Formats: sequence, C-alpha cells, structure tokens
Amino acid sequence: MLNGIDPRIAPELLHALAAMGHGDQLTIVDANYPAHTAGLNSDWGHCLDFGGTSTDALQAILTLVPIDQFDRERPAVKAMQQVDAPDTPAEAVAQAIGIVRAFGHDIAMTERFAFYEAAADSFVIIRTQERRLYGNFILRKGVIE
Amino acid sequence: MLNGIDPRIAPELLHALAAMGHGDQLTIVDANYPAHTAGLNSDWGHCLDFGGTSTDALQAILTLVPIDQFDRERPAVKAMQQVDAPDTPAEAVAQAIGIVRAFGHDIAMTERFAFYEAAADSFVIIRTQERRLYGNFILRKGVIE
Repeated sequence: MLNGIDPRIAPELLHALAAMGHGDQLTIVDANYPAHTAGLNSDWGHCLDFGGTSTDALQAILTLVPIDQFDRERPAVKAMQQVDAPDTPAEAVAQAIGIVRAFGHDIAMTERFAFYEAAADSFVIIRTQERRLYGNFILRKGVIE
Repeated sequence: MLNGIDPRIAPELLHALAAMGHGDQLTIVDANYPAHTAGLNSDWGHCLDFGGTSTDALQAILTLVPIDQFDRERPAVKAMQQVDAPDTPAEAVAQAIGIVRAFGHDIAMTERFAFYEAAADSFVIIRTQERRLYGNFILRKGVIE
C-alpha cells in the first residue's frame, strides 16, 4: 500500500500503468471477457487483476493515468455497444460515461467485434470482478506536462 | 509517468514500494555504496535506480511510504555516522534529518558497520546518484489506515 493510491491497484498493476507511455492503450474488462488470452497478447504479457467493478477500476485508474488529448479525432476512450440494442448503453457503460465526463472526455461507442480488434492492441489488460455485461473500456494514455 | 508521482520513482521502484508491507525496510544508498551486491541479497533480488540525490529520493519516497510508528523503541529511520567524526552528521545526513523531521520522525545515527548489517535485511536497495559521502538511509515501512 502507498499513501494516496487506491490499494485495489495492486503493485504490479501500478508498475504497468507507470510504464505506459503516450499513445499506449489499456483495456479494463469485465469478469466474462477472455482476459487471460487477451493478456497473453498484450505488451505486458499477462492480464492483471483489479479487485472491484470495472467502473471502480476506471475511476481509480483515471486519477493516475491522463487521457490522451492530442488526437481529438481519434476517440481516446471506447466502450462496447450492446449487440441487441446498439443505441442504448449498458448499465456499466452509462456509469462509465459519467466518470469519464468528469475528467473532460467522452466515450466512443464501438461495435462488439471492432472493440475486440481495438483491444488486441493493448499495453495491458485489466481483469475486474465486474458482473454487469458490457463492462469493458479501452483508454489511450495521454501526457503529463 | 503517473499523475502526482515523482517520475524519478521509476515504474519498477513504484512496484517495489507498493509491494512492501509493514516492517519491511528500504535502503537508499549513495553512488559509492556497493549497491549491486546489496541488491542481490535484498528481497527484491536486484537494486533499483533513482535518478537524483539520496535526499531527493528520501523526500519523494516519504510522500508515498509511511514511516513505522508502531515500535518507537526501535528507530524507523537510520543514517550512517562519519567514521572520523561520529558526532557530526555529514552534509547529506543533516539535510535528511530536516526532511524526516517534517514527517514527524527522527534519524538514528548508526556506526558504519552496524549500518551495513542493518541494510543487509532490506526489502529493496535504492541506488541514487548521490555524490556526497554518507548519503545512505534505512527506512522501515509503517501502516496506512
């Protein structure tokens, strides 16, 4: 544990977040996501666990990790559309939109398979205990001046 | 880099600091210290670098790592006495005393070989770029409530 850092961000996850550079992408996934396999293909080489929901992970991580502001044309935060209701955000996504807005950004809604494709280019996969379906988010890291 | 964390605390050092528990000990050493060898014998298994002086390292680390308060009889912060002037703190140590006092603690002055012996029981050895002699400090981690 460290002063001022949410202990649900475990030591190795903290290492990975600090090691990310500008443009690197992290993916926070729910408990149903094929996280182990996705983690093997990430830059970190294995997925890392967060002991809470995916929206808790998003909130905790955004206090430490800046969102990319350089390339406003390319969405810096993405979530997955519901397959049977693409225009309605799932409950976890609706909550995430509020969290990300508080940091001055929007979430781009992404079709399920396009999301998987984007997530395949992740520095690290963060597996949460999120039980709500569609609780998956991609975040591109920005810079700290 | 992460919001609010001194980037001289590199990602792996951040990992090690977060992985330390109550009673674990870190040793910050100057550029002359046999840090590589000491690091091999530490719990972390190799020494980690900090890109600044040992007093800068102490200041940066104390913002994250609490000093042990449980066992006031046993000093939680130690520095090395000058071999030829045991009653006079070296310049780096005098500066460190001020830094540690600002966190509510004192530094116990320790004879050179007793310091090496205490440092041998370290979770991690942190090698700095400190050129001032005697710029070596041992810190025992406390708890965060």
